[in-house]
Amino acid sequence: MIIKIVAVGKLRERFWQEGVADYARRLGAYARLEVIEVPETRVEGEAPAGVERVLAREGDAIRRKLRSREGGLVVALDRQGKAMASLDLAAWMEQKTLEGVKEITWIIGGPLGLDPALLEQADLLLSFSSLTFPHQMMRLMLLEQLYRCFKIMKNEPYHH
Amino acid sequence: MIIKIVAVGKLRERFWQEGVADYARRLGAYARLEVIEVPETRVEGEAPAGVERVLAREGDAIRRKLRSREGGLVVALDRQGKAMASLDLAAWMEQKTLEGVKEITWIIGGPLGLDPALLEQADLLLSFSSLTFPHQMMRLMLLEQLYRCFKIMKNEPYHH
Repeated sequence: MIIKIVAVGKLRERFWQEGVADYARRLGAYARLEVIEVPETRVEGEAPAGVERVLAREGDAIRRKLRSREGGLVVALDRQGKAMASLDLAAWMEQKTLEGVKEITWIIGGPLGLDPALLEQADLLLSFSSLTFPHQMMRLMLLEQLYRCFKIMKNEPYHH
Repeated sequence: MIIKIVAVGKLRERFWQEGVADYARRLGAYARLEVIEVPETRVEGEAPAGVERVLAREGDAIRRKLRSREGGLVVALDRQGKAMASLDLAAWMEQKTLEGVKEITWIIGGPLGLDPALLEQADLLLSFSSLTFPHQMMRLMLLEQLYRCFKIMKNEPYHH
């Protein structure tokens, strides 16, 4: 399975970088991981027009990275998406693997969220929390959760 | 406001320690933070009896740390608790402050969760996610979210 993560913005603090590197290494035992960063756009002008422009520009940059292998799926992380238990997310990934899916792309937006047009295109809108978290933390949460899902799929114990 | 965190288990990897220290420092501008660690108990014997014994023992250890100032509240983090938006959690904290609450204790269980008796005693069961996360990560998520709530209450911009 190829796990592609398209994320808006960089990891700034060292602890985010080290945490993400740690889980990327663990995940590497189960999947081929590709992480693609798209630049964060600054808001210029008044909200909501300024915000819409940022989301549209970031959305375009993300879309250019989405060309995937045949049969690839796109999951967008969205606070208002579907809330799932880890067991259910693992079961969904397992089912898609059985259906022949070889690649899943996971999209993490910037501080303002994701372009509504992108949300419409995604195969799954997944909510990690009804709370808002920094996008840097979301990347660590996503990697940890993907690692957890592979552990569940392989029926292996999870070592913290 | 005094923010007391009672957590089962230690932070092992350095990036968890550094991330938690970073958000503890930021939170320190808004609240007096006390973090109390309770030892994680190993499961001995078969599930579910072994698990119940662990939760009961960890629950006892947590309860001994809960004696709080008059009018203090207890929030237990529970995957099946109430899902809230950050704005709603901040509004809840603001309301409690107006009602004279000077201290809120936040409880994070270990890998097996929390003693059901403790969940019954809590003033609020708060769900951070329907997904399962490592308890080390939960501590970082909680600190970040409390920092975010104080920023919202003070009407200050959030710097990532």
